[in-house]
Amino acid sequence: MTKYVYDFAEGSKELKDLLGGKGGNLAEMANLGLPVPPGFTVTTDACRAYLRGGDEPFGLADEIGLHLERLERQAGRRLGDPDDPLLVSVRSGAKFSMPGMMETILNVGLSDATVAGLATQTGGDERFAWDSYRRLIQMFGRTVCGVPGEAFERALDDAKRAAGTTDDLGLDAAALRGLVTRYREIFREHTGHDFPQDAREQLDRSIRAVFDSWNGERAVLYRRQEHIPADLGTAVNIVAMVFGNLGPDSGTGVAFTRDPATGATGVYGDYLANAQGEDVVAGIRNTVPLQQLAAVDKHAYDELMVIMAKLEAHYRDLCDIEFTIERGKLWMLQTRVGKRTAAAAFVIATQLVDEGVIDLDEALHRVTGAQLAQLMFPAFDLSRAPERLARGVAASPGAAVGAVVFDAKRAAALAARGERVILVRRETNPDDLPGMIAAQGILTSRGGKTSHAAVVARGMGKTCVCGADRIDVHDGHFTADGRTVAEGDIVSIDGSAGTVYLGAVPVQESPVVRYFEGTLSPGADPLVAAVDRILTHADKVRRLGVRANADTADDAARARRFGAQGIGLCRTEHMFLGERRPLVERLILAGTDDERDKALADLLPLQRADFERLFEAMNGLPVTVRLIDPPLHEFLPPLDELAVRVALEESRGEPDGHDQALLDAVHRMHEENPMLGLRGVRLGLVVPGLFAMQIRAVAEATLACRERGVTVRPEIMVPLVGAVQELEAVREEAQQLLGALGVQARVGTMIEVPRAALTAGEIARAADFFSFGTNDLTQMGWGFSRDDVEGAFFTRYLELGIFGVSPFESIDRDGVGRLVRIAVDEGRRTRPDLHIGVCGEHGGDPASIHFFHDAGLDYVSCSPFRVPVARLEAGRCAVVATGSDSR
Amino acid sequence: MTKYVYDFAEGSKELKDLLGGKGGNLAEMANLGLPVPPGFTVTTDACRAYLRGGDEPFGLADEIGLHLERLERQAGRRLGDPDDPLLVSVRSGAKFSMPGMMETILNVGLSDATVAGLATQTGGDERFAWDSYRRLIQMFGRTVCGVPGEAFERALDDAKRAAGTTDDLGLDAAALRGLVTRYREIFREHTGHDFPQDAREQLDRSIRAVFDSWNGERAVLYRRQEHIPADLGTAVNIVAMVFGNLGPDSGTGVAFTRDPATGATGVYGDYLANAQGEDVVAGIRNTVPLQQLAAVDKHAYDELMVIMAKLEAHYRDLCDIEFTIERGKLWMLQTRVGKRTAAAAFVIATQLVDEGVIDLDEALHRVTGAQLAQLMFPAFDLSRAPERLARGVAASPGAAVGAVVFDAKRAAALAARGERVILVRRETNPDDLPGMIAAQGILTSRGGKTSHAAVVARGMGKTCVCGADRIDVHDGHFTADGRTVAEGDIVSIDGSAGTVYLGAVPVQESPVVRYFEGTLSPGADPLVAAVDRILTHADKVRRLGVRANADTADDAARARRFGAQGIGLCRTEHMFLGERRPLVERLILAGTDDERDKALADLLPLQRADFERLFEAMNGLPVTVRLIDPPLHEFLPPLDELAVRVALEESRGEPDGHDQALLDAVHRMHEENPMLGLRGVRLGLVVPGLFAMQIRAVAEATLACRERGVTVRPEIMVPLVGAVQELEAVREEAQQLLGALGVQARVGTMIEVPRAALTAGEIARAADFFSFGTNDLTQMGWGFSRDDVEGAFFTRYLELGIFGVSPFESIDRDGVGRLVRIAVDEGRRTRPDLHIGVCGEHGGDPASIHFFHDAGLDYVSCSPFRVPVARLEAGRCAVVATGSDSR
Repeated sequence: MTKYVYDFAEGSKELKDLLGGKGGNLAEMANLGLPVPPGFTVTTDACRAYLRGGDEPFGLADEIGLHLERLERQAGRRLGDPDDPLLVSVRSGAKFSMPGMMETILNVGLSDATVAGLATQTGGDERFAWDSYRRLIQMFGRTVCGVPGEAFERALDDAKRAAGTTDDLGLDAAALRGLVTRYREIFREHTGHDFPQDAREQLDRSIRAVFDSWNGERAVLYRRQEHIPADLGTAVNIVAMVFGNLGPDSGTGVAFTRDPATGATGVYGDYLANAQGEDVVAGIRNTVPLQQLAAVDKHAYDELMVIMAKLEAHYRDLCDIEFTIERGKLWMLQTRVGKRTAAAAFVIATQLVDEGVIDLDEALHRVTGAQLAQLMFPAFDLSRAPERLARGVAASPGAAVGAVVFDAKRAAALAARGERVILVRRETNPDDLPGMIAAQGILTSRGGKTSHAAVVARGMGKTCVCGADRIDVHDGHFTADGRTVAEGDIVSIDGSAGTVYLGAVPVQESPVVRYFEGTLSPGADPLVAAVDRILTHADKVRRLGVRANADTADDAARARRFGAQGIGLCRTEHMFLGERRPLVERLILAGTDDERDKALADLLPLQRADFERLFEAMNGLPVTVRLIDPPLHEFLPPLDELAVRVALEESRGEPDGHDQALLDAVHRMHEENPMLGLRGVRLGLVVPGLFAMQIRAVAEATLACRERGVTVRPEIMVPLVGAVQELEAVREEAQQLLGALGVQARVGTMIEVPRAALTAGEIARAADFFSFGTNDLTQMGWGFSRDDVEGAFFTRYLELGIFGVSPFESIDRDGVGRLVRIAVDEGRRTRPDLHIGVCGEHGGDPASIHFFHDAGLDYVSCSPFRVPVARLEAGRCAVVATGSDSR
Repeated sequence: MTKYVYDFAEGSKELKDLLGGKGGNLAEMANLGLPVPPGFTVTTDACRAYLRGGDEPFGLADEIGLHLERLERQAGRRLGDPDDPLLVSVRSGAKFSMPGMMETILNVGLSDATVAGLATQTGGDERFAWDSYRRLIQMFGRTVCGVPGEAFERALDDAKRAAGTTDDLGLDAAALRGLVTRYREIFREHTGHDFPQDAREQLDRSIRAVFDSWNGERAVLYRRQEHIPADLGTAVNIVAMVFGNLGPDSGTGVAFTRDPATGATGVYGDYLANAQGEDVVAGIRNTVPLQQLAAVDKHAYDELMVIMAKLEAHYRDLCDIEFTIERGKLWMLQTRVGKRTAAAAFVIATQLVDEGVIDLDEALHRVTGAQLAQLMFPAFDLSRAPERLARGVAASPGAAVGAVVFDAKRAAALAARGERVILVRRETNPDDLPGMIAAQGILTSRGGKTSHAAVVARGMGKTCVCGADRIDVHDGHFTADGRTVAEGDIVSIDGSAGTVYLGAVPVQESPVVRYFEGTLSPGADPLVAAVDRILTHADKVRRLGVRANADTADDAARARRFGAQGIGLCRTEHMFLGERRPLVERLILAGTDDERDKALADLLPLQRADFERLFEAMNGLPVTVRLIDPPLHEFLPPLDELAVRVALEESRGEPDGHDQALLDAVHRMHEENPMLGLRGVRLGLVVPGLFAMQIRAVAEATLACRERGVTVRPEIMVPLVGAVQELEAVREEAQQLLGALGVQARVGTMIEVPRAALTAGEIARAADFFSFGTNDLTQMGWGFSRDDVEGAFFTRYLELGIFGVSPFESIDRDGVGRLVRIAVDEGRRTRPDLHIGVCGEHGGDPASIHFFHDAGLDYVSCSPFRVPVARLEAGRCAVVATGSDSR
């Protein structure tokens, strides 16, 4: 028979799946001999069985009964004993922390019969006993029986009014006893039953309510956003109550074994005398620094210090704890490996190495690419920040400053004039897109991490704060905290913290970026020193190479400073823009082979010069040049714009021949679905000389660099190949051209069309390397175009749980990832030395990097700014975790 | 060691891979005891080894020597013997017939030394001997040594002029001897060497030339068009020469054992006295019906009749033969299973069944879906046709009549006025597309089966004759055979035969279609009787079901008459067009939930009525209804059109509110790549109530029909699913709606997004059936949209051999087909009873049907007109061939 209940003595932190984080850690502390109130944990197994069957699984009640008896023995009190009642708390505790998302019921065991016993227990504190009882009725009523909280709130207010006080503390024992009577009436009115007087019934129903809260609306939403599986269930912890509110020799606190903000050594915490934990969390009264406890109760303070040192040594990491002191006796109520800021994560990890607690592999495992990425964003200099105006959801990181604008069109218009604006909306919709693109940042008063604004902003890498629900958006102004902000007023929004400030907050460049740029030495800053040390180790252990996607010499140089080992993707299409547009127009409008060849001949020296600059910047490192990919009509004006222009010219009787010719060309080349049209290798095979011109430019640039002593390692990459014959045709042309000029270059292909992955075994015959274009592979594998659908339906899909995360953000392992695995396996079967990388945006995404490592790729390539993140995560893939999991 | 040479006595028709068709059949005849001149065959193995290595494989020369000795013994003459020389022919012969595409050299063995011996052999016919010699020099020079043919032609003309004759026959022995001298000079001028006098050298070099001709330009092109693998190589047949031109008791002919045009029984052939086979093929002199041979040489005629009967009995099929009579002695030079028309194929197959030669399975195997399709096109009534104007490539079948137009825009304009036009162009390009769409048919003077015109026309199912190279297209008229055809003149083009007629040829409906429609009984026409009998057998043996794609009751009724066993795809989008457009506009422009719900409520009864009519037509059979698939903006006017309209309205100072609202909506909903946008299940999940309205309409129509005694078997099909969660969401909604109304319906999904195939094991959890949408699967798998690319680059791709055939015509087995196999295997692993079909256009393509049969599908669904083709091919999949292969 399944064991559904574990005493703390039976558990451990390793049983987190079964006991939840809280239960596992309570057991761990108990077994370390720390002062934990006696208790037991009902497992997630029981929860899952309950949620499946709609009722407690067979035997659970008996098992709880047995453990309850043991608990009673340990506590020396019995549940429901009128003279000396045991009270327990019933708390949720899932595998992954879901703070505040599920239910808790305290003081279970109080009833008309036991309330007096509690008073006796607490030295005759009747007020305390009746207050505890009314809290139980309120919590139980709301949580277990769905009685609206306001009913209780109103009665409490009435009681306070009657007592002529505005504070709970102004109610004396008699008033509270009256309030209990009123609460019980309210309970009966709403449920049709009396508040249960049987302590065991209270306990069982509380446990069930915690189970149910796993599927509560908030919890479901939270799990979706945090990508926590929906089928884990929660454990339930039943723990003997201890009280921090029994007088000045009681109290409660939270503490960290190091500073979770900076990583600085030394205990860091808050204490509140004569209070329960809930009071600290609610922030009703002001806490004092933990150190002040030493003055009040040296003994308890010292004991706490010893315990915290013990915990850190045991967990080999920063721990946070919750504790209560009941009349001088210290009780540990919770511990876990503590959350910390990104900066603290790096600093603590290297500190622990220095302290000999962990090795560098483990240190590497304890930081994440996401944390490093966070450290690279510019941040507000908060020492110079004005007061915070509002707080919302940190939807898309960054620090943006600009003038408030409420209308997307207006935002676009102002931005076009060079003004920096922040688009403020209740919520956004696809019509707002131009304004979102134009704005420095986006601020909304509704919606969370999956709202339209959040999804689109993250997709664009734009700073965004969502759901700042204390701001109220009107026409032409918004209010927050009683202040009115008008269009044109300057605000600053912090997308990493979710905060909004009135006025311009100075922005600081990240010291980590300054270090990468070479303008800050590692010794100058402990954070930078920690990053340097861990990244150096990552570089040492990683198997995956890291390259950058860079199209210009400047980008390439920066990528190199950031640690890129080559260019994995140089897009050549920008080389057809700007001043070169007229040349490209000539190419497109060419009526004869001769005209076309002349246009290409004029483009050649420009391309060659581009490549020369790039090759110089990457002296000695490989550079993968992708031949031109987009359809040619992308270099012409949009159809509707041109059609309107020509129609108006005609209606004015001033026809323009060039515009008309352009319109004809656009009409002729118009494609319903340009992404699926005449582009990539197709264009290369249909437009004679186009690819040849580019290949010649690469070869000539190589020769020119060589003469100047620059070492060039060019790689020619063919886009959009779907069949080996396409690649063979281009490869043959390339090899002839390169051979004639005496230049050696690898020739390979993007794998970005599903068919290429499915026939990779064939394609490998003609390829020196593969580079996965996971953007297109995702678009074609799913059949949706990123431009068109992210705003249009991803919000809804995230809400429905169809995606845990956008497949453009993190690779879809089951579908697109399967194509990647097929291509790697079958490509290598044909050609064991096939060099394989990825140059889609997934190349810089931590979760995807782990997938690529597992799939056996040789390198990832990503934007220059993601290069350090990729180096770090590639290192993390290569080390095996030996210690705690910081999730 | 590989055996590279086979005597005829060692070969058989089963060794076709090795000996080629011609060699295998010569061996077969020799072994049947028929009078075949002695000879041997050099294998395709030898050819492949030669082409790989660039030289004859080791041992080949010796092996040829040994077989040559045996040939000399059999013939009683020796190669190069001055007194009685053996002459041989050296002919190509590949596995698949490639008529005229490779080389032949006759009279090998003639030289200055042997020419006199040949004259003696032929009773002193010196003229014949010298003529044979000059032919060898000419053929060998051109074929083996690359001497330009015109050099010899010019010398021949000079000789004729000198002799005062215009006919070859006007040259006497002396003149021909002089011509030989001149030919040898020409040979030396062009090659730098003398014409080889060694007979064995002549033979070896001729064999090598035949090998090389496998990779000749014509042969490569032909193979690409006919989808013959490029790596097969050709065999070479070396056969003792026999001569049909040695006097009136000699001659040559071709014959069929039955009429290859109609299938009528009785021998059918042509004879030419005193001539070589080449003369018959060249059509220089007029042949006489074979029966006249009986009068000239009864003995030979009777022997031929016996032989032909023997061949038909042996091959169990229509045979064609080539024979020569040399001074009264009959020699069989070739036989094979004969080509025949589509009609003859059906008629002969059933005749042979009646004659007890083959069974019905074999008869089914001997006809093809392509032949049946050909019989279903309307055809010209040629008995009432005027004289043929020109002949070209039969590029896209059908019979079209219309007025000649030379300009695509003008064609579109005239067609818009209701006129029937034939677009005539030298060749077409993407600019001609609107005219091609508008025309009844397309006629070009350049290009073959893979030209732009041909590819696009086949894609559209439009009649097309290409490369009619005797017509000459000018501005405003074309000339053919000296006649001038002006714009506006009526022509008739037959895309199945490649013929062009001046004037309107009456069009006849196909008797086979009249039979399917029930207006012609099988007994009324032997062809129809044969089709009926074979299709009935196909229905009996086939495992694959055949359904139709039909959106209206009329289409459904026709499909049923044509034998469909249900509707595999009812597209519901047409139900949103026409008069319903305003309703759809209301739906799209709806500003509130209420407006949207009202628009949907107004659509409901219309949809319900559509379904009722459809269900009635299919009483008792399953009907698969696909929920709406295209993006909603497809129901609005195009962006550029609307933009111009609004801009002009504004410039006139007459703004139109509705147009502006529409333009705003189109702008808002505009998608760069609508195929990859908000459509299918995405639309259903984003627009509340849309799918529900359609599902309700299906359910209510089912109930209404049931009341009238109509049996409805509805199936709800969800388009564009990529993840099981999408399907689950719709399925849940559907089951609630259906359950509430008490209607049973299967709920399944299209598999048309690559990811759906890759995760089919998951998706099958929520699907009662899969239906492959191979159009979209091809578009997304290859990453090209059919609309955009067929004209733009398929021509080039077919030329380059990247495609053997458009992947939209016949399924791409390696890429898209792999997705199909993955989905079938993994879907069935999850759910063994999963019902699986295909409803893309490939469902009606013969080659694809065989693939779907092999992949284990349950049914195919295709357009009503393809239903009989699919029934036939499904039957052919199920029978195992027992007899000849008619390719």
